[in-house]
Amino acid sequence: MTESTGKIVLGPHQYGKAENRVVRIYRDTARHEIRDLNVSSCLRGAFDEAHTLGDQGAVLPTDSQKQTIFVYAKTHGDGSIEEYGLALARHFVNEIEPVDSARIEIEEYAWQRVPVGGAGHDHSWTRVGPEVRIAAITVSGTGSAQREWVIGGVKDLVILKSTGSEFAGFLTDEFTVLEPALDRILATSLTAHWRFATAPADWDAAYTGIRAVMIETFATQHSKALQQTLFDMGKAALEAYPCLAEIRLAAPNKHHFAYDIGRFGVENNGEVFIAPDRPYGLIQASVLREDAPDAGTAWDPYTGAV
Amino acid sequence: MTESTGKIVLGPHQYGKAENRVVRIYRDTARHEIRDLNVSSCLRGAFDEAHTLGDQGAVLPTDSQKQTIFVYAKTHGDGSIEEYGLALARHFVNEIEPVDSARIEIEEYAWQRVPVGGAGHDHSWTRVGPEVRIAAITVSGTGSAQREWVIGGVKDLVILKSTGSEFAGFLTDEFTVLEPALDRILATSLTAHWRFATAPADWDAAYTGIRAVMIETFATQHSKALQQTLFDMGKAALEAYPCLAEIRLAAPNKHHFAYDIGRFGVENNGEVFIAPDRPYGLIQASVLREDAPDAGTAWDPYTGAV
Amino acid sequence: MTESTGKIVLGPHQYGKAENRVVRIYRDTARHEIRDLNVSSCLRGAFDEAHTLGDQGAVLPTDSQKQTIFVYAKTHGDGSIEEYGLALARHFVNEIEPVDSARIEIEEYAWQRVPVGGAGHDHSWTRVGPEVRIAAITVSGTGSAQREWVIGGVKDLVILKSTGSEFAGFLTDEFTVLEPALDRILATSLTAHWRFATAPADWDAAYTGIRAVMIETFATQHSKALQQTLFDMGKAALEAYPCLAEIRLAAPNKHHFAYDIGRFGVENNGEVFIAPDRPYGLIQASVLREDAPDAGTAWDPYTGAV
Amino acid sequence: MTESTGKIVLGPHQYGKAENRVVRIYRDTARHEIRDLNVSSCLRGAFDEAHTLGDQGAVLPTDSQKQTIFVYAKTHGDGSIEEYGLALARHFVNEIEPVDSARIEIEEYAWQRVPVGGAGHDHSWTRVGPEVRIAAITVSGTGSAQREWVIGGVKDLVILKSTGSEFAGFLTDEFTVLEPALDRILATSLTAHWRFATAPADWDAAYTGIRAVMIETFATQHSKALQQTLFDMGKAALEAYPCLAEIRLAAPNKHHFAYDIGRFGVENNGEVFIAPDRPYGLIQASVLREDAPDAGTAWDPYTGAV
Repeated sequence: MTESTGKIVLGPHQYGKAENRVVRIYRDTARHEIRDLNVSSCLRGAFDEAHTLGDQGAVLPTDSQKQTIFVYAKTHGDGSIEEYGLALARHFVNEIEPVDSARIEIEEYAWQRVPVGGAGHDHSWTRVGPEVRIAAITVSGTGSAQREWVIGGVKDLVILKSTGSEFAGFLTDEFTVLEPALDRILATSLTAHWRFATAPADWDAAYTGIRAVMIETFATQHSKALQQTLFDMGKAALEAYPCLAEIRLAAPNKHHFAYDIGRFGVENNGEVFIAPDRPYGLIQASVLREDAPDAGTAWDPYTGAV
Repeated sequence: MTESTGKIVLGPHQYGKAENRVVRIYRDTARHEIRDLNVSSCLRGAFDEAHTLGDQGAVLPTDSQKQTIFVYAKTHGDGSIEEYGLALARHFVNEIEPVDSARIEIEEYAWQRVPVGGAGHDHSWTRVGPEVRIAAITVSGTGSAQREWVIGGVKDLVILKSTGSEFAGFLTDEFTVLEPALDRILATSLTAHWRFATAPADWDAAYTGIRAVMIETFATQHSKALQQTLFDMGKAALEAYPCLAEIRLAAPNKHHFAYDIGRFGVENNGEVFIAPDRPYGLIQASVLREDAPDAGTAWDPYTGAV
Repeated sequence: MTESTGKIVLGPHQYGKAENRVVRIYRDTARHEIRDLNVSSCLRGAFDEAHTLGDQGAVLPTDSQKQTIFVYAKTHGDGSIEEYGLALARHFVNEIEPVDSARIEIEEYAWQRVPVGGAGHDHSWTRVGPEVRIAAITVSGTGSAQREWVIGGVKDLVILKSTGSEFAGFLTDEFTVLEPALDRILATSLTAHWRFATAPADWDAAYTGIRAVMIETFATQHSKALQQTLFDMGKAALEAYPCLAEIRLAAPNKHHFAYDIGRFGVENNGEVFIAPDRPYGLIQASVLREDAPDAGTAWDPYTGAV
Repeated sequence: MTESTGKIVLGPHQYGKAENRVVRIYRDTARHEIRDLNVSSCLRGAFDEAHTLGDQGAVLPTDSQKQTIFVYAKTHGDGSIEEYGLALARHFVNEIEPVDSARIEIEEYAWQRVPVGGAGHDHSWTRVGPEVRIAAITVSGTGSAQREWVIGGVKDLVILKSTGSEFAGFLTDEFTVLEPALDRILATSLTAHWRFATAPADWDAAYTGIRAVMIETFATQHSKALQQTLFDMGKAALEAYPCLAEIRLAAPNKHHFAYDIGRFGVENNGEVFIAPDRPYGLIQASVLREDAPDAGTAWDPYTGAV
């Protein structure tokens, strides 16, 4: 490497309005529905002179993007976050001239009806989490050249199995002091993003189903490593959902160490653990079809939250 | 007020080991159980000379408290967090001579079994939240003078109703610009602590039931203000559970403001809201029985988390 | 303890507007000043019927409190957070009839001028932290019966010494496995609240000075335990500032454990540590003058942040 | 898009040990030094069978990586985080056979000596922030084919100017209600990553200098938009540091809205602002030299924190 003295130029750039907290109530009947969202818009295009000259002539204010997000929550928010995001992204690309590409990232917080007399209440809910449903929609180009990519997913899905997990037969080096484990707790806080090859019949049902397939696989497959479990989870989802092209998984190995109570004359027997915060293993993997369509800019991030 | 030049002395003091992350698995049968806890110990007593002279002769290390917490998770952790906390607090007061009083604060994180084939899996769970069950146990004195106080509760219980809430008829002053609201969203992230007058038949059932009574009241009672709703929730819990002496509630009024989309020609009709983070109203109230037993030091806090 | 069936009544209650993020710029000259605040108001008084009947006739909306906070930032915000808080608290008690007592809690975030050409820039700053200056002002009663309490303080003041700290000679029990330490890292994230006996000549100078005395004591006094260090820090502050009546300190013992690299043939010699997040020792102590004036309701909390 | 039914295969994958909290004290003389780090390792290579077969034969445990990180803190931690990261990355690529590429991400928390008697204390410090120094080192390949990329940077650098900023002349659409602003507060929490074309003479001095150039530019250049300011900051850094190839900047536009106190008869005059949390504008841009060397995998992330 040598010192570099070439001309200094603007590289890739993008901007938008991040984290609009939209709460949409549907009150067409006495049985209300709720969608609780965190919506971010991101525009890419001919904004160079805003950077290099301070000329805002091509820059749609982020405040205007915010207004659009709230208006579309009423006019285009009747369905899933994927459809709402598609409507917003198409609008920015098709209606705002300098925009070449738009990305909409959405988090959706889940609510469940308060149980009253054996049924869910019409207009009262409690939040459920910690997991959050996510989507990232990218629309690029105009007319017949327009392309669209939809990513759905879940983050902060905390899952644990108290047996059926081992870690042994690993590579060793001069710094290896870890003992093989033949029966351990396996736990993670999963983030999974799945890229759609085509639109499913029902976006909400797809979310519910993909999530269910993955956690069932986690529960029922014996694990020789978190790596294997992640691959199996992704593979099971792809097998069950032909609408999917690819899944990307990121999973901290949330360690649970058996606590040494034996020195006080009390046998542990795999029942008492300490759960440290840091450090943690962090495993990332993708699972995809060999014939998956081109991902284009589907994975180019914006906020980092999705 | 005047300057103060009196002798400088040690005032009230306490110490302990905070936030021990204990995960307890019960694997007596193939159908495992899990208790996921954050346990803090706090000792009060004759520790003055540790402060004033640096003499640690009366100070049981916080590390020893930590060991005890993990050992007791095996030996005394078969039941509820209230019983586990009582066992720990009694131990410190009865076995460690300089300790006059001990307080144990516990957070319990909830898990639900992964659904597999229509039933919950034997040893796999997902975390559910954001709400956290809490308990704070205080044991003070020895022998016949020993007293015990048990507080149970829930925190971060996020609850929302999309109608059935108003706020009108309020006091006005020169800075009042708020308009009365006759139909608004009411939402909060509730923290409730209930003090037991006596032990219930089943601590876990009491937690589940008290929580259920409160959220059902929130759902079904028309609200003229968050103040009224909190009082009604507390009252309903006390009425349903004679084992309770008192409930303390803290509730941020998580505002949801109707977003002005009318200026763009789109009618809102109470369906599109923005949910700002700050500021928020913050209402705190207690509901108690006139003949409630003395609270003693039950409410003297330690970590601030419980 | 027995079951309790007495009449259910409202207990202590309070409410207000929490976490108003006020940024005040002083631009009287080209050299601007900045005050970056988080302000919470809390009113106590005759609000029973808001709870028990839903009657808001005595309730000043939290929105009105918010407006007042922002107006007073202009009209009464020229000085310290203590004086600003006093102005707000007096207003609510004196002008709003049902209010018996008001508490104002303020966090102040520090900024330092950007260095340009050897001097601080006139109107540009970077934030400095993590520590936050805090104040809590309580005004109670009217007329000649009116009383005022002012608490100042700092939170999240992270401080560490790499030697000059030991912990030995402690009490042992059956669960004690800790070895005495004769040379260890001592680190904490200090929260200190000091109650004024009388107003200092300069509130801002008092903050700076009290903070300086405490951290100098931490640095220069050999520590036989965090308990001793806290007492010495509080005592030093009281000795240097006769305007103070009392200091309360809360200090997590942020453990730094020497990492065992010896097993790989590398001597540690007190140079490589791991800093776990949890658990941590947590020490709380107060230091006060024997002739300190009555604290009244000075320590009754509101948000938990101050 | 159509449904996809091709063979399901493993895609890109990587793993490591994240967030090792290493505190390194240098005590060669009575004047100690401190380095307070959060270190993450990431390995890429021939780990496919860990995923697809559960065979761990090529997997070096993350625990072994952790041990290495702590040992190297003693043996290779005498300099900057960039050099420490390089040593670790080279080790994993050169010594662990299945590893094709290693990435080390490091956060460094700053401390300043406690002032005592006009000088900094020998072994006591307070933390300063919120900004955090960051580095990400990637080493790929072996022997003469080995390549190295070093990224340095800063995150959470909060900076504000109270005048000298405008936003006007922007594009408008049907949803634009924003008024042009000719004098506003400009504030952000900057994250900047700079890629080195070659090693500077002194990594620590480079960090200090690059940071200083950027904040001085922020302070002294009139801003027509945050976009322009970011470009100017990046350009100034590249001009001053020929060792740099490229800078990437991400900057939330932390809005400060003038609060409407005029309705209460109090003129604001740009002195009282409310600082909402969300939403915020989010601007991302890169500035680079036209002859910048190839970035290779320098920007492929791991933890998301760096």
